Amino acid sequence: MANKPSIPKGTRDFLPEQSLKRQFIFDTARKVFQQFGYVPIETPAMENLDTLLGKYGEEGDKLIYKILNNGDFLAKASEEKLANKDSQSIAFEISDRALRYDLTVPFARFVVQNQNELSFPFKRYQIQPVWRADRPQKGRYREFYQCDVDVIGSNSLLSEAELLCIIDEVFTNLGLSDVRIRINNRKILSGIAASAGMSEHFQSMTVAIDKLDKIGVDGVKEEMLRNGLPEAGVKKVLNLIKLKGEVTATLKMLAGAVVGSEEAYKGIDEVKVVLKALPEAVREKVELDLTLARGLNYYTGAIIEVGHDDFPSSICGGGRYDDLTGIFGLKDMSGVGVSFGADRIYDLMEEKGLFPETLKASSQVLFVNFGKDEVMSAIHLAADLRTEGISAEVYPDEAKMKKQMKYANDKGVRFVVIIGEEEFKLKKATVKDMLSGDQDSLDQKELISFINDKLS
Amino acid sequence: MANKPSIPKGTRDFLPEQSLKRQFIFDTARKVFQQFGYVPIETPAMENLDTLLGKYGEEGDKLIYKILNNGDFLAKASEEKLANKDSQSIAFEISDRALRYDLTVPFARFVVQNQNELSFPFKRYQIQPVWRADRPQKGRYREFYQCDVDVIGSNSLLSEAELLCIIDEVFTNLGLSDVRIRINNRKILSGIAASAGMSEHFQSMTVAIDKLDKIGVDGVKEEMLRNGLPEAGVKKVLNLIKLKGEVTATLKMLAGAVVGSEEAYKGIDEVKVVLKALPEAVREKVELDLTLARGLNYYTGAIIEVGHDDFPSSICGGGRYDDLTGIFGLKDMSGVGVSFGADRIYDLMEEKGLFPETLKASSQVLFVNFGKDEVMSAIHLAADLRTEGISAEVYPDEAKMKKQMKYANDKGVRFVVIIGEEEFKLKKATVKDMLSGDQDSLDQKELISFINDKLS
Repeated sequence: MANKPSIPKGTRDFLPEQSLKRQFIFDTARKVFQQFGYVPIETPAMENLDTLLGKYGEEGDKLIYKILNNGDFLAKASEEKLANKDSQSIAFEISDRALRYDLTVPFARFVVQNQNELSFPFKRYQIQPVWRADRPQKGRYREFYQCDVDVIGSNSLLSEAELLCIIDEVFTNLGLSDVRIRINNRKILSGIAASAGMSEHFQSMTVAIDKLDKIGVDGVKEEMLRNGLPEAGVKKVLNLIKLKGEVTATLKMLAGAVVGSEEAYKGIDEVKVVLKALPEAVREKVELDLTLARGLNYYTGAIIEVGHDDFPSSICGGGRYDDLTGIFGLKDMSGVGVSFGADRIYDLMEEKGLFPETLKASSQVLFVNFGKDEVMSAIHLAADLRTEGISAEVYPDEAKMKKQMKYANDKGVRFVVIIGEEEFKLKKATVKDMLSGDQDSLDQKELISFINDKLS
Repeated sequence: MANKPSIPKGTRDFLPEQSLKRQFIFDTARKVFQQFGYVPIETPAMENLDTLLGKYGEEGDKLIYKILNNGDFLAKASEEKLANKDSQSIAFEISDRALRYDLTVPFARFVVQNQNELSFPFKRYQIQPVWRADRPQKGRYREFYQCDVDVIGSNSLLSEAELLCIIDEVFTNLGLSDVRIRINNRKILSGIAASAGMSEHFQSMTVAIDKLDKIGVDGVKEEMLRNGLPEAGVKKVLNLIKLKGEVTATLKMLAGAVVGSEEAYKGIDEVKVVLKALPEAVREKVELDLTLARGLNYYTGAIIEVGHDDFPSSICGGGRYDDLTGIFGLKDMSGVGVSFGADRIYDLMEEKGLFPETLKASSQVLFVNFGKDEVMSAIHLAADLRTEGISAEVYPDEAKMKKQMKYANDKGVRFVVIIGEEEFKLKKATVKDMLSGDQDSLDQKELISFINDKLS
């Protein structure tokens, strides 16, 4: 193979520094989820094709990666379809499995399949990659991680409040305490639609509102009118969802405007209960945003979305769904969950320089290799340092000093320890602090306490 | 969908307890790797099909999962092959990508592709799933994790020693300090072959020896003879590889028996250097086993394999390869690495009950939900506990006490906190220690220190 090798479009290799930073995000999220009693699950990358098909709309179906059956996959395929080169229907004859497209449908499948081994309400998190045959572009990949956290099997609004606390805690721990957490409720939107005489257009209304950030109020209005929504209703809706300001007052105004809509009252009450169950510090950060619609049809109550002023798209979002497992035959399982967009969070943190400096350091101490005798001291001292929890490595080759120092520098090593011929004889070591540039000569037996001191 | 949903044969869902245990293995390994200055990388699940093809032998190629091209994949496919239902060659016309089959080939591809951004010697670890369309059977899955650690870009034997230390440290930290670490060297085997006049049969000889554990000495002998290896040579080889006992003495005997084979001497020297570079505690555990061959053709020096007396197959293995990146056009990159079989290690640890009991506990404290007033105290106290690093959750529904206690029990929660009507009024809490069965009544403000005391 003469050409330089490559990877499929839309996929990425992660270099060490990137991997460490990604791991930092996952570890931070994981720790918070566990603090709140959420437990991890994993599902296979491959699902049966019929588990996934029809769950993401027609467009979604096209973006699912199908896996070619192994062995003589054409044996049973229709000759006529093959002759017609009917790719779309042949696909289902030669592929039984597919790569998961999100974590939500596999989670619903998991709950139904494993229901007898779970105790409900079941609080799970799941951090795994998903695959979509989308057109790659900046910030959009064909393989990316989702980081989902859900409660299923309870319709308590305390779960919504808990998820808002989790969101606040995760982002605060990532250094992003200034995210904007916005909530809304589909029942309010549905009540608004009803009070504007647009109940039958609800889906088309929410799809349009969902685009507000991108196309502006005029764009949304235009889209609604184009789709045949009555002008008076459109005006009323756009006026209502504009309501902003202090939450209690806003809800009161809203309640006055949607008189008679039980659905809206219910939504308003839900928002109140959720807010009441939040600790003061979190409540202060949560905004009510009636323009928040989220296109996804399966949401039935709360809608949550997290954004940041310095980032164009949302970095976390979700909501309440009353019947997700119904598609797999298990009814009456209400759930609520949010998904953290790990790749976007990564990009935002990178842009704002929020990753801890220490992440870069692959090891704290490097011992220079001066030859086969001297290196034996280094090996033993490195082992001693590790016992103390200090990461340490010995340069494997007896290379030029300059090369070894460059290696230490590239890897972000904090201390370089030199045991040359002289030091070896005297049981000494020269320690160079790469941060301060200081160089110290000390007895080998003082090394651990010396480095421990410097690190603390 | 009326049928209960399922997942593809050979794949698995992981329930929370299993996921936590798996995570424990990965975290333990990761921590050790980092202590030795190894850094993580990640590669995409999908590689270009031509990156993988031809790297795993003819059998391996058949086990690679190919991904169907999206869109009108049949458009460019040969009509003749379609008419003939020639699955094997059509596969390459309708699939450009495949799921990775191991981490070694993607690593070689990664090193070549990213060589300008890496500093060598490059010490990486990688913990990711791989996929093989193998026939599923006990302990063999179609999706499983590999956990690889390699040094590339140096031929120093200190790296072999370092990997042996890592192996010892990982298994000790997992509670498996009694693993058997066996080493050998392909150069010794090659020298043995030469001294027995069987150099031309080297590959066939190592493949046979590799089966020693399974088919015994007689079986190996039979296979060699059946493959046309000269009887005198076979006898000599089988006699030599039997050599066992104290390493230095064994190597001396061996040196006497392979007089004149430079290759064997080189291998013997390598083993000596590796052993010398090991701390006493690790050296004591390492056995020289001349019957260790490992079938894989790309090994050129040290061979390492780790087993356990209570487990039928190896749980970790690897070796030195002098030209892995050559297949992608980058010559002279010697490397050495081992792969930990996470799924097998899991099975062994499960069998021996080695996972820490505390892993099960999804949260340490559960607050019973007694209604909308009482639960507000619970929410605030739970938040306070989390600030102290104690995981705590509030049962979301106002369910029957029995149901809430069962939930706590199923989840392995250590403390159940009850704030009923009476406790709420008096700012008290009743704490039940699920481990001891003790029940205490205390002031709410004492809760944190009470639980901290019990936990420490």
